[in-house]
Amino acid sequence: MLDPIQRVAILGTGLLGTSIALAAVRAGCEVEGWDLDPETVQNAGRLSGLAPRPTLEEAVALADLVVVATPIPAIAATVVRALEVAPSAIVTDVASVKATVVAEVRSRSDAELGSRYVPGHPMGGSERSGPEHASASVVDAIVWVVAADDTTEPAAAERFSRWIERLGARPVALSPERHDRLVAIVSHLPQVASSSLMGLAAVEEADEPEILLLAAGGFRDLTRLAASQPALWSEILVANRAEVGAAIGLFVRRLDQLRADLEASDAPAVERSFRAAKAARLGLAAKPTVRSGVAVWQVEIPDEPGALARITAVLAEGDVNIEDLQIVHSPEGGRGTVHLTVAVANAGSAARVLADGGYDPIRLA
Amino acid sequence: MLDPIQRVAILGTGLLGTSIALAAVRAGCEVEGWDLDPETVQNAGRLSGLAPRPTLEEAVALADLVVVATPIPAIAATVVRALEVAPSAIVTDVASVKATVVAEVRSRSDAELGSRYVPGHPMGGSERSGPEHASASVVDAIVWVVAADDTTEPAAAERFSRWIERLGARPVALSPERHDRLVAIVSHLPQVASSSLMGLAAVEEADEPEILLLAAGGFRDLTRLAASQPALWSEILVANRAEVGAAIGLFVRRLDQLRADLEASDAPAVERSFRAAKAARLGLAAKPTVRSGVAVWQVEIPDEPGALARITAVLAEGDVNIEDLQIVHSPEGGRGTVHLTVAVANAGSAARVLADGGYDPIRLA
Repeated sequence: MLDPIQRVAILGTGLLGTSIALAAVRAGCEVEGWDLDPETVQNAGRLSGLAPRPTLEEAVALADLVVVATPIPAIAATVVRALEVAPSAIVTDVASVKATVVAEVRSRSDAELGSRYVPGHPMGGSERSGPEHASASVVDAIVWVVAADDTTEPAAAERFSRWIERLGARPVALSPERHDRLVAIVSHLPQVASSSLMGLAAVEEADEPEILLLAAGGFRDLTRLAASQPALWSEILVANRAEVGAAIGLFVRRLDQLRADLEASDAPAVERSFRAAKAARLGLAAKPTVRSGVAVWQVEIPDEPGALARITAVLAEGDVNIEDLQIVHSPEGGRGTVHLTVAVANAGSAARVLADGGYDPIRLA
Repeated sequence: MLDPIQRVAILGTGLLGTSIALAAVRAGCEVEGWDLDPETVQNAGRLSGLAPRPTLEEAVALADLVVVATPIPAIAATVVRALEVAPSAIVTDVASVKATVVAEVRSRSDAELGSRYVPGHPMGGSERSGPEHASASVVDAIVWVVAADDTTEPAAAERFSRWIERLGARPVALSPERHDRLVAIVSHLPQVASSSLMGLAAVEEADEPEILLLAAGGFRDLTRLAASQPALWSEILVANRAEVGAAIGLFVRRLDQLRADLEASDAPAVERSFRAAKAARLGLAAKPTVRSGVAVWQVEIPDEPGALARITAVLAEGDVNIEDLQIVHSPEGGRGTVHLTVAVANAGSAARVLADGGYDPIRLA
């Protein structure tokens, strides 16, 4: 039985650091914090219950766990400094690309010191920034990757994982390389595809001003991510460039195959490929935490003020939590159709409550 | 001044044909219908007020306008037959790919007969099929492409366009070739990209079962279309294969450029490209009909039963129609954030109503 983590130091008290502090305080930990900007750590302290410290050294002195949540360029150096100063603490970080940060930490620390470094990636966040927008809900039920490598002491990774669970999140063990490869496909490639599609349509619009008139719900779904922060994303993609490049390559190969099938008028080949993708999509859950146990209902609603209010109220009165709600569109437009995702345990009560409310739900998944 | 269209014949009374019938009846037209399946046209008649006719010839005999809404393979032959039988009617169709259908009609009819053919594409639909799921709302406020070519009599196209407006939809004039080129980019390419991304992740999942655990909201947005009907879509894409192939080519070129920028660690180039895409995305409206006049508000809500019910009720009580609502996610997860799209005329009242309701909306667009 490993001692639970009790004292936590947060280095870098922006939105994510302060949100982790809030969740840790809620879980009964004592939390200290430090930030390069003294005002930021004072704000974080006022908002989260962490004790602000004037130096990194003072913040980590008594810590069982140090969480490095500084901007990416400062992470590796801060991790190494924390390992040196805190004689027995586990040190983790929140960088969204792991292999480069881990390599930098390893190159600057010996194996003994480095055995207490457990690379991490809490997969939560917010469009906002700064401690004033922090919330424990930023980490509630998220996937938190524990990216231990060969140098990491297994007991440290285990102890850190138990702490993640106490915070209400879900630890998932992946090596730094696997983490980077998988996020390249499911997180970084979608960003690339979305921005590329939107960029392409924007260029066409210069010649064809009507083009966006024809853009229905599908185009909007595909390009929503293109509104994300360009500076943040170019930094992330460059940090993971090898894996993102490989993912783009796999994607282009599939696109080229489909183009060849179309050129050959091979409708059965196109249909087979689409059918496999459809089956996979229907198996994909709405939320990571409930992905193995969700049900999706399709419901038609009138396109008028109050229509969404009514259906969401019907479900709330029936005490059915909506895991996800999407206004969806047919292949070519169509309006007033909603996809409701609920935990599979609530599938039956959702159907009953909807039917009692006068709706005619169709189960999609 | 052109005579308004008064008598309409619908050939093929499935979901779309019957929905058009409902909208035409609502607009005060007399509507007759025919379907290859006698039971289908009887159902359509009962549900929409169209008068069922046992033969195509009887249905079109007195028509000012014939709308051909049969399955795609039958469209061209049915258009030609209607032109031959109905001596002065305008004949249109609903095929979602235009150039091939138009070429087939032109090859089977002379210029005089063909001058009354106005190719069309009402960009509405539904995941369901059959007259029993028809609704006039399927065509409310949609874009309805009027794809006249050189053979089409301009007065016929004009008269048809006025009728579309009476039905509550929006006529947009595009040649058949331009229509096919533009939908290849904003409708067909998104389907291809979505299915390809989902297919890629599904193949990876065989080796990496954790991959979909890491898939957050962005991946779900990008892959939602992959759940569309494979048979329908393979037919559409093959019918428009040249333009879809060209669109895939343009898309691949952009992806390859981005990959080259990443290989060169050229973060400023990536950021520039993403910045242009972001600007274009923020300019894209939520609904085709209001695209030049929407406002988008971002609001944080708690992740609990009733949270959506409450915010939608607040807006309904304030008489603000929600044009679109999306549960959105940060680049890396995050939950409880909603994007609300409202007509720009309602932007101020939405903000007031939300603030009065205790929300803190941020205007995104």
